[in-house]
Amino acid sequence: MKPSLPQGTRDFSHEVVRKRQYIFDTIRQIFERYGFQPLETPAMENIDTLMGKYGQEGDKLIFKILNNGLDNPNKEEKTRQALEDVLEGKWNKQLTERALRYDLTIPFARYVAMNHGSLTFPFKRYQIQPVWRADRPQRGRYREFYQCDCDVVGSSSLLNEVELIHIYDQAFQQLQIGVSIKINNRKILAGLAEVCGGLEQLTDITVAIDKLDKIGLEKVKEELTTRGLSATQIQTIEQYLQIEGSNEDKLLQIEKLLSTSTQALKGIAELRYLLDFTKGSVQSLELDFTLARGLNYYTGTIFEIKASTVKMGSIGGGGRYDDLTGLFGVKDIPGVGISFGIDRIYDVMEELNLFEGKLSPGTEVLFFNLGDSEIKGAYPLIQGLRQAGIRTEVYHESVKFDKQFKYAEKKGIPYVAIVGSEEINEKKITIKHLPSGWQERMDSQDTLLIAEALHTQRQGK
Amino acid sequence: MKPSLPQGTRDFSHEVVRKRQYIFDTIRQIFERYGFQPLETPAMENIDTLMGKYGQEGDKLIFKILNNGLDNPNKEEKTRQALEDVLEGKWNKQLTERALRYDLTIPFARYVAMNHGSLTFPFKRYQIQPVWRADRPQRGRYREFYQCDCDVVGSSSLLNEVELIHIYDQAFQQLQIGVSIKINNRKILAGLAEVCGGLEQLTDITVAIDKLDKIGLEKVKEELTTRGLSATQIQTIEQYLQIEGSNEDKLLQIEKLLSTSTQALKGIAELRYLLDFTKGSVQSLELDFTLARGLNYYTGTIFEIKASTVKMGSIGGGGRYDDLTGLFGVKDIPGVGISFGIDRIYDVMEELNLFEGKLSPGTEVLFFNLGDSEIKGAYPLIQGLRQAGIRTEVYHESVKFDKQFKYAEKKGIPYVAIVGSEEINEKKITIKHLPSGWQERMDSQDTLLIAEALHTQRQGK
Repeated sequence: MKPSLPQGTRDFSHEVVRKRQYIFDTIRQIFERYGFQPLETPAMENIDTLMGKYGQEGDKLIFKILNNGLDNPNKEEKTRQALEDVLEGKWNKQLTERALRYDLTIPFARYVAMNHGSLTFPFKRYQIQPVWRADRPQRGRYREFYQCDCDVVGSSSLLNEVELIHIYDQAFQQLQIGVSIKINNRKILAGLAEVCGGLEQLTDITVAIDKLDKIGLEKVKEELTTRGLSATQIQTIEQYLQIEGSNEDKLLQIEKLLSTSTQALKGIAELRYLLDFTKGSVQSLELDFTLARGLNYYTGTIFEIKASTVKMGSIGGGGRYDDLTGLFGVKDIPGVGISFGIDRIYDVMEELNLFEGKLSPGTEVLFFNLGDSEIKGAYPLIQGLRQAGIRTEVYHESVKFDKQFKYAEKKGIPYVAIVGSEEINEKKITIKHLPSGWQERMDSQDTLLIAEALHTQRQGK
Repeated sequence: MKPSLPQGTRDFSHEVVRKRQYIFDTIRQIFERYGFQPLETPAMENIDTLMGKYGQEGDKLIFKILNNGLDNPNKEEKTRQALEDVLEGKWNKQLTERALRYDLTIPFARYVAMNHGSLTFPFKRYQIQPVWRADRPQRGRYREFYQCDCDVVGSSSLLNEVELIHIYDQAFQQLQIGVSIKINNRKILAGLAEVCGGLEQLTDITVAIDKLDKIGLEKVKEELTTRGLSATQIQTIEQYLQIEGSNEDKLLQIEKLLSTSTQALKGIAELRYLLDFTKGSVQSLELDFTLARGLNYYTGTIFEIKASTVKMGSIGGGGRYDDLTGLFGVKDIPGVGISFGIDRIYDVMEELNLFEGKLSPGTEVLFFNLGDSEIKGAYPLIQGLRQAGIRTEVYHESVKFDKQFKYAEKKGIPYVAIVGSEEINEKKITIKHLPSGWQERMDSQDTLLIAEALHTQRQGK
């Protein structure tokens, strides 16, 4: 039997783990500096917790787990009935009580709803865990992938948005990825709908605008016509979409265009507050009224991150929502959150060669195996180096040097150490740096000194 | 709808995440110092990869994932047929093509089999990831839990065992858990079976001996009788189980008892090699001939870890196997591996109060909110502290100090910082250490100096 991986899933070899770890660690450190605390939830949730939260399409893409013990004859009748539901595209707890989480937001909402009595609000959590979706796999889209979220809930203060903008700014600075932080406000989109003739068209307008990037203005206008908007309405939307200039210019134009909507004016005031507060302290915060964000639950500020020098979809996004936990029976918990698109960030960093020199090393020294008694004699030294933090391997068997050199080369181990019986007697160690050919016979008694020599040599390269 | 968690699964709040992280980080660091490299595999595997690897009982405990798209009318007939299999306790890919991994060993074997052409052997990997089992949940047994494994494959050298023994020793020293590393060799158990009358009784003997801890000698003898062993045979086994004394004493006794078995003598020689090599360099390596390990695939050295001062099952285990990847069509890859029982290690550390003073902190300073312009004025200072590595929060709204103090207390934030308009004008900051009442008005311009003061105060506590 030839083994294989399920479609859309990946093994991560050590090179990839280290690169991903670098991204996670960088972002985690920033989250923590802003006072966010880690949370982890299980991969499996009760199916009730997940179903109906992501729309009909989402429901279909949730991985459902088959119940165990279905061979129990007492359950047979019910299980057969349950299959009828499944065949009709419905789900049935007789067959599947659990499912794999589809994002980190709903499990977070479930957690807050279950624990709201004991949590301190505003509650600030971050969460970096995999999620699963039965999407058709394609380049850059996987069935198992990590999400990396941070949210503040239990506060309507715009100070939270200020903090999240700074988190985005600092995280991407630290990762050395040039980005534009695009910002808009759902109240402005609501105001546009209002001015165009009615809030009931908000979703139509949002969905159409959301496609602007992909299909262009003309197609958006066509779609708006199909969705029943009049020529005058579409003209207003076109004016809206064509607002250009500096952030300040844009604010002035939008104020004029949507001056009759109190909703829009509220959104504009919120944006102005954020722009004022962050002026001079973040690299690139850009008003973008064409930013709509697909998700329906956003109600205020919305964010999206674009890499400046690499062609790629958004590498982050988020926004404010009024009601996180209402679905789970706990009312009045508003919040705001952002998310980092780890897989795309990884691709950007690969493309820009940004991992170089930043990853924790693999093995640093390989001790050659010259025989059993030589290894025994060298072992205290080997252990001393490890104690000093040097990643040290011992070749597993005493074979020709050729083979041992090849192992070091293949694994990219920069140093080899040779301790033969002569060296043991004289308390010496010979160290060779493979990339440069540098070699030295050193005193073997001061392991810290040896460790230092290795580090110096490494940095001096 | 009142939300809940699936039975046997857990949310990890930030306190628990930090404690678990401490354990993971400690063990990971040791793995890396010994030249082991990280590997991550997906949560889902093809069902063929998992089924049939863990015995019939294991197969039942594997969580299987329902295929998506079962509402496709073209598949209806086959899906109905597939359900018949499931009702009989079998599985069928028409209904479930994927399953959640049950341990880390089989996915590792699958990975090695898929990539053996490009890997450098001996291949040393560690893996720290969750696994899922549909076991009946009980105290200390979960349906989602982490495993933490390291393995060397592609080498029969006993030097690997030497290294793994040191990894165990150093990891538990670092965690400050006193342990006994128990060691035995499957060849000795095979020799016992041989001496007793036949290798075909190896499994019967192993299974019975494995229960010694739980049921005691008399019951083990009863079980051996039931399994068809004669009184003479049982007498030999009893002698075997009663071997006592120092490691050297035990070796001499076992050599006498099993002197007619070349298998046993080989196992004894291996144990002697390991004891000699590690003499004086590990704290407690203890020969234990009653150690059997349940799993069938072990063929040489076997390990088990017991905490010295806490009553608890084993907190680690492992052993040598001859053939990792044979099941996947790749022959002749022997190896040896060990595993750390994270959940039990956690419980031991809680019981012994070993986490104290070792965890990375939560928020260190809370900036009080005295109003919007005050926060704006203090923001560069706040950002400076974060840059200096201080975990800093800003209270989200300008309310009475009472409420802000309560937030700091509830969250266990040790410092509060007050920057009012007066402080801004005079470039000052007032810092108060809540646990001690220490308070100081400092110059606000040198953030590094402030950061240092916070650290000093924290350590001076």
